[in-house]
Amino acid sequence: MTDPQHPDTATDRPDPAEHARWVAVADRVAAQLSSDVVARDRSGAAPHKEVELLRDAGLLPLLIPARNGGHGGSWLTAFEVVTRVGRADTSIGHVLGYHYLHNWRTRLARRLDVVERLATETAANNWLWGGAGNPRDAGLELEPTSGGYLVRGKKFFATGAEVSDRVIASGTDTVTGQKYGFALPTRTAGVVHGEDWDSLGQRASASGSIAFDGAFLAEEDILGPGEQTDPDAPAYPSLSALGFQILLGLLAVATAEGALRFAAEYTRTKSRAWATSGVAEAADDPLVRVRYGELESQVRAARALTDRAGAAWMAAASRGWELTHAERGEVSVELSAVKVVTTRAALDATQGVFELTGARATKTGTGLDRYWRDVRTLTLHDPVSHKAIEVGDHLLRGAYPEPSGYS
Amino acid sequence: MTDPQHPDTATDRPDPAEHARWVAVADRVAAQLSSDVVARDRSGAAPHKEVELLRDAGLLPLLIPARNGGHGGSWLTAFEVVTRVGRADTSIGHVLGYHYLHNWRTRLARRLDVVERLATETAANNWLWGGAGNPRDAGLELEPTSGGYLVRGKKFFATGAEVSDRVIASGTDTVTGQKYGFALPTRTAGVVHGEDWDSLGQRASASGSIAFDGAFLAEEDILGPGEQTDPDAPAYPSLSALGFQILLGLLAVATAEGALRFAAEYTRTKSRAWATSGVAEAADDPLVRVRYGELESQVRAARALTDRAGAAWMAAASRGWELTHAERGEVSVELSAVKVVTTRAALDATQGVFELTGARATKTGTGLDRYWRDVRTLTLHDPVSHKAIEVGDHLLRGAYPEPSGYS
Amino acid sequence: MTDPQHPDTATDRPDPAEHARWVAVADRVAAQLSSDVVARDRSGAAPHKEVELLRDAGLLPLLIPARNGGHGGSWLTAFEVVTRVGRADTSIGHVLGYHYLHNWRTRLARRLDVVERLATETAANNWLWGGAGNPRDAGLELEPTSGGYLVRGKKFFATGAEVSDRVIASGTDTVTGQKYGFALPTRTAGVVHGEDWDSLGQRASASGSIAFDGAFLAEEDILGPGEQTDPDAPAYPSLSALGFQILLGLLAVATAEGALRFAAEYTRTKSRAWATSGVAEAADDPLVRVRYGELESQVRAARALTDRAGAAWMAAASRGWELTHAERGEVSVELSAVKVVTTRAALDATQGVFELTGARATKTGTGLDRYWRDVRTLTLHDPVSHKAIEVGDHLLRGAYPEPSGYS
Amino acid sequence: MTDPQHPDTATDRPDPAEHARWVAVADRVAAQLSSDVVARDRSGAAPHKEVELLRDAGLLPLLIPARNGGHGGSWLTAFEVVTRVGRADTSIGHVLGYHYLHNWRTRLARRLDVVERLATETAANNWLWGGAGNPRDAGLELEPTSGGYLVRGKKFFATGAEVSDRVIASGTDTVTGQKYGFALPTRTAGVVHGEDWDSLGQRASASGSIAFDGAFLAEEDILGPGEQTDPDAPAYPSLSALGFQILLGLLAVATAEGALRFAAEYTRTKSRAWATSGVAEAADDPLVRVRYGELESQVRAARALTDRAGAAWMAAASRGWELTHAERGEVSVELSAVKVVTTRAALDATQGVFELTGARATKTGTGLDRYWRDVRTLTLHDPVSHKAIEVGDHLLRGAYPEPSGYS
Repeated sequence: MTDPQHPDTATDRPDPAEHARWVAVADRVAAQLSSDVVARDRSGAAPHKEVELLRDAGLLPLLIPARNGGHGGSWLTAFEVVTRVGRADTSIGHVLGYHYLHNWRTRLARRLDVVERLATETAANNWLWGGAGNPRDAGLELEPTSGGYLVRGKKFFATGAEVSDRVIASGTDTVTGQKYGFALPTRTAGVVHGEDWDSLGQRASASGSIAFDGAFLAEEDILGPGEQTDPDAPAYPSLSALGFQILLGLLAVATAEGALRFAAEYTRTKSRAWATSGVAEAADDPLVRVRYGELESQVRAARALTDRAGAAWMAAASRGWELTHAERGEVSVELSAVKVVTTRAALDATQGVFELTGARATKTGTGLDRYWRDVRTLTLHDPVSHKAIEVGDHLLRGAYPEPSGYS
Repeated sequence: MTDPQHPDTATDRPDPAEHARWVAVADRVAAQLSSDVVARDRSGAAPHKEVELLRDAGLLPLLIPARNGGHGGSWLTAFEVVTRVGRADTSIGHVLGYHYLHNWRTRLARRLDVVERLATETAANNWLWGGAGNPRDAGLELEPTSGGYLVRGKKFFATGAEVSDRVIASGTDTVTGQKYGFALPTRTAGVVHGEDWDSLGQRASASGSIAFDGAFLAEEDILGPGEQTDPDAPAYPSLSALGFQILLGLLAVATAEGALRFAAEYTRTKSRAWATSGVAEAADDPLVRVRYGELESQVRAARALTDRAGAAWMAAASRGWELTHAERGEVSVELSAVKVVTTRAALDATQGVFELTGARATKTGTGLDRYWRDVRTLTLHDPVSHKAIEVGDHLLRGAYPEPSGYS
Repeated sequence: MTDPQHPDTATDRPDPAEHARWVAVADRVAAQLSSDVVARDRSGAAPHKEVELLRDAGLLPLLIPARNGGHGGSWLTAFEVVTRVGRADTSIGHVLGYHYLHNWRTRLARRLDVVERLATETAANNWLWGGAGNPRDAGLELEPTSGGYLVRGKKFFATGAEVSDRVIASGTDTVTGQKYGFALPTRTAGVVHGEDWDSLGQRASASGSIAFDGAFLAEEDILGPGEQTDPDAPAYPSLSALGFQILLGLLAVATAEGALRFAAEYTRTKSRAWATSGVAEAADDPLVRVRYGELESQVRAARALTDRAGAAWMAAASRGWELTHAERGEVSVELSAVKVVTTRAALDATQGVFELTGARATKTGTGLDRYWRDVRTLTLHDPVSHKAIEVGDHLLRGAYPEPSGYS
Repeated sequence: MTDPQHPDTATDRPDPAEHARWVAVADRVAAQLSSDVVARDRSGAAPHKEVELLRDAGLLPLLIPARNGGHGGSWLTAFEVVTRVGRADTSIGHVLGYHYLHNWRTRLARRLDVVERLATETAANNWLWGGAGNPRDAGLELEPTSGGYLVRGKKFFATGAEVSDRVIASGTDTVTGQKYGFALPTRTAGVVHGEDWDSLGQRASASGSIAFDGAFLAEEDILGPGEQTDPDAPAYPSLSALGFQILLGLLAVATAEGALRFAAEYTRTKSRAWATSGVAEAADDPLVRVRYGELESQVRAARALTDRAGAAWMAAASRGWELTHAERGEVSVELSAVKVVTTRAALDATQGVFELTGARATKTGTGLDRYWRDVRTLTLHDPVSHKAIEVGDHLLRGAYPEPSGYS
């Protein structure tokens, strides 16, 4: 048994063979997702079958410690798995990444017995985790009842919840005013999915609303006091919000990488050289080559920064309850920079590829527009300009972003 | 009767009252188009009803001389009408602008009696003109037959042709090898519309393919020798290609203007201020205000250049057969610059507005994505980088673009 | 004698022959300035000789009405003259443009007899005007004395004042608190030039400080009440601040145009093709050609917008005291957009040309860096981001910038 | 004694304490360089005193193996040392980085006894190395003479050579046509420094010409056959050209970092808030904060990519003669991306800071322009657009840049 204050971080450097094994699994899943991603994107249906694909591939318990029956993988591996899946299908990468984080963050609420039990059950049952935590919506209410609470309230965006087995959320005891984190079985009576996600991008991410109409929350599913963001609170729990930021950055970069690879293949095999270009093949046109190079270079830089930030987040996570606010602040600033850089690189790449493939690639069915739509939607999770403010304040005054649901 | 070499240019400065009258008509049409543009965009159906709207409003014979029963309007008015319509619905602006150009360019082929007759019939019957001239497809074949030709061949993109009354095209006599321009009634037997336009943007522009399966072309509908692009040919006919460029530039800017106005209204009325912005309303956030200002400034510059180029094109058109290749070259370089500038400004604006409205504006039904999709599709008509080459060559060597279907 | 409320606007369309004549004069002056601009820029000396050049060429009284002995030119001509001079030497263009504005704005203070006399004397003596009005410094004090005032105070930046014959300024009566505009002979005792302008760019613009150590201001040189910016004041006088903005925009664009022409010549005649470019001459490299085209296109758009704004400013000026705040506001927003667009285009161009000429062009003596240094300095006159805010506020709320020394 | 094929790579992970020690030394040197960098930049004198500073600090033999009397440091440490010095003074960082590389690359020519001797002498005498290898100039000629050669020829750019103790170069035997690398004592008779470096930036880098007027080259100073770039040659020696690329990337980023830190301090302590900003301090203006954040984010991404590329170069170097062309190719593509990204980030940052400090920071003596001038000069070493082509070709076709003096 590990330190009760710090059950498992899964942030150590992974065994290279294990890492390679899961990356290969992810690549196989990605290949399968690619085969029908355009049609699925168009339909916008919740990804029930795709979650089965992840489940059957064994990817869901990747981060669960071996002692709980999981694969004991590292976040480094998880990040790479999310990247590989995300390059093929940003929505499914999104659902998978959030699953890893939602399950991992159970530990931030301190009831380690519950954490351990949920980890074991997650591995045993191959659960997928979702969350209901959109900070911009009103909080959930917990009405005390025998053996637990009745949960009431609504969250308008809850990526993955609709296709999950467990939903992590937090709410406030209507009597005591105490805030609790909890993990509810998704198929509890009174949990209602709006099935109302119909958006420009991330169409298969099941990001619609979730309502709790008096759903019963058993006492044993309470994780402990909710994540706190006040300055005197420990820094560790507030790593949760930063975990979402690193995942969003990874997905933006992965989508850009996917777009560039897809487009380059298209240019090489389908595009026609322009009449005045003086070359026979579009891929020989210096204007095409230079622009691909500029976009790819920018995406490489975004990748390098995101990976660096991911490593910083992992290092912070491995500090557990020892983590200081200054250490946490450095990661937060770095992640704000990630948001600025990945947003720009991913928009530039996914918008720019059309100029390198030509007009015919706008035909519905080609699927090249999916990348831009996914990036455009994903990067609006929170405003990039306010992230830039945080980076600027650090440079100007050494300030750290105030911990919140976004920073 | 005017100068037989130069029947009518419709490029003079318009009477201000007439100009204002048609702009007001266009605004009314635009308001009507706005009311259901999102649904129509989604369906992607050919705009039969929308053409009726244009027809009923009297906009179709705007440029037809009064002596032919038209309104005797100016291109300046036509450009403004296309702009107003395009801000509301880029597809319909596209169809309307091409209509003006297709009818106008009948005169470039020199059979003035035919030009006059077609002008009169266009006014009398309120015809809409389309074209079948995509330069990247193989040319049409004209097989001599009694009283005319049988037309054979296919054009893969023919904006507006499906909803038109007359189609302008050119083809080659299979016996003599002579090239002719002609104007065919759209509903001639053997003219087949592919109804195969299903694209990222410009979805209501009826830009699908048109096939000629031995359609009969009467001798009286031959306009004369086809537009020539060789250096010794007169410069005047090659203004046709530049007319398309000015319309594409106008439509890109108009779409950007439409997007900024729509988004600003959304921000002012629906967006929520960000938690850390320190302001109560999203429209008071300095980061929102500054970005709107940057995008609007860039679009204003694009508009100013496009208008300047439009005036230059009109002045060139008013020179008629006197137009020199150098005069034509200056307009062509200017239009290449227009392409560079409008592409960038319109993409920046239509992509950027999402950061100023917030995540909820990605919801299907909002319709904010339509602007980007239209611009992204429209600006791929021909590659912007090769247009930049033309501007560069002029700066470096004083060179003019070689006249072609695009420059 | 003209309308006493509106003595002369000099904003009418110029006679084409007169316009061409002065543009040709400006081109000759520009050619002479070009011959030693690099050395003069390096020295940073005040441009006494260069002002003589302008004076001898007859450019100084260009805008003075014929009835006062001037050339009766139009602002349109003046803008073009400033542009031609500015392409060759931004500093001298700056001094000349400010001269035109400083003299012109005498009329905004309403003592028309003084305006007329000064106009006549300016023409007769071939005066150059400077100003001492930097709004960010403390205001000047006017201590009443027999026959006028003693002027006290300092302005840290006063472009052209050091080489001028008359300085326009404003100050406050220390007894009554009334603000007055006035025009002082530069060589009045107690007027002290700091000769302290030593800056990154605009080195020959004599933009250093000016101090008034009890300089005598005769009652007859008082122009009237100072320019007011309060909302109830007439809008006309506040056109002065906008005049500076249009000149700054013009100079930024002119400098960019100068840089592109200079660099293109260098590329064509001196640059070596890169080894892997596959071409023999640098000017044949598609990567060089496309980049020149992008920069030139951007500068053309900036030029078109600036010219449009110049015309709007002239139209507003021609309205005189009838000008409404809304009319003035439209011009102000347009000029804020000019600032945003010209700053970006001119920085991009003057920075970017180095990549098109190659490393050797960084050699001191080449003079290619002068353009960037001038633009970088010039465009900091006031912050471009706050200008963008003004454009944004107009789009969002229909607001106009509050009249000030900058907007 | 190490493997004769691979004497020492100095690329292993450094001992953390040793690493920290040298970084601290570099920081002290940097602080000293900062104290008079503005004046030295202005003078443009060769950095004799500054080399003494590096020498006295013990930084010169950092990479020399302990067995040769050096500090046995790692390239990772050297890169960080160059970064710290470069943030304060790009020119001196340039001289120091090239010193490391010039000495290191002696080993690429295979005469290990000479390598060992030169390493030992470098440590013993605290030598600084320069080079005379500009690939765009004609090659040097080696005229056989008793005991060696007489060297003839000229290189127009030879950063650091003037202040060095040993110059590495290559030349061709005029009789046999064989190419040799060699290392000449700088103060050999017949070695003439042009002292002709007078450029926009990097003014203290002593980058002027070096001429060899029959300078005697002793046989013992021949390093072996010159670096080959043909496809069949081993890949290892061609790492030399890539070493320059990584140093140039590092210096560009370091300069940008230096500029942002300097400017942020200026904004915080000297800039005045803009009148309409609604804040009391410039550093509180959201428009200032957001722009600092954008620039800093971009520079962070450039840093992350450059560091990643540096690690890749080190890993390749540690492969020695086993290095394959494909492995080398991956590093080369990555470094081309570094060039694209660092050029853009460093130009944006060093140009952009002026908008955040305000107009007064253009005053000569402030020194803020130095950063831009250094970056603008440094990044022209070879054309960034052709580097983008290389990245594009890799994405499109999996191609690697052909080894050359630049890729």
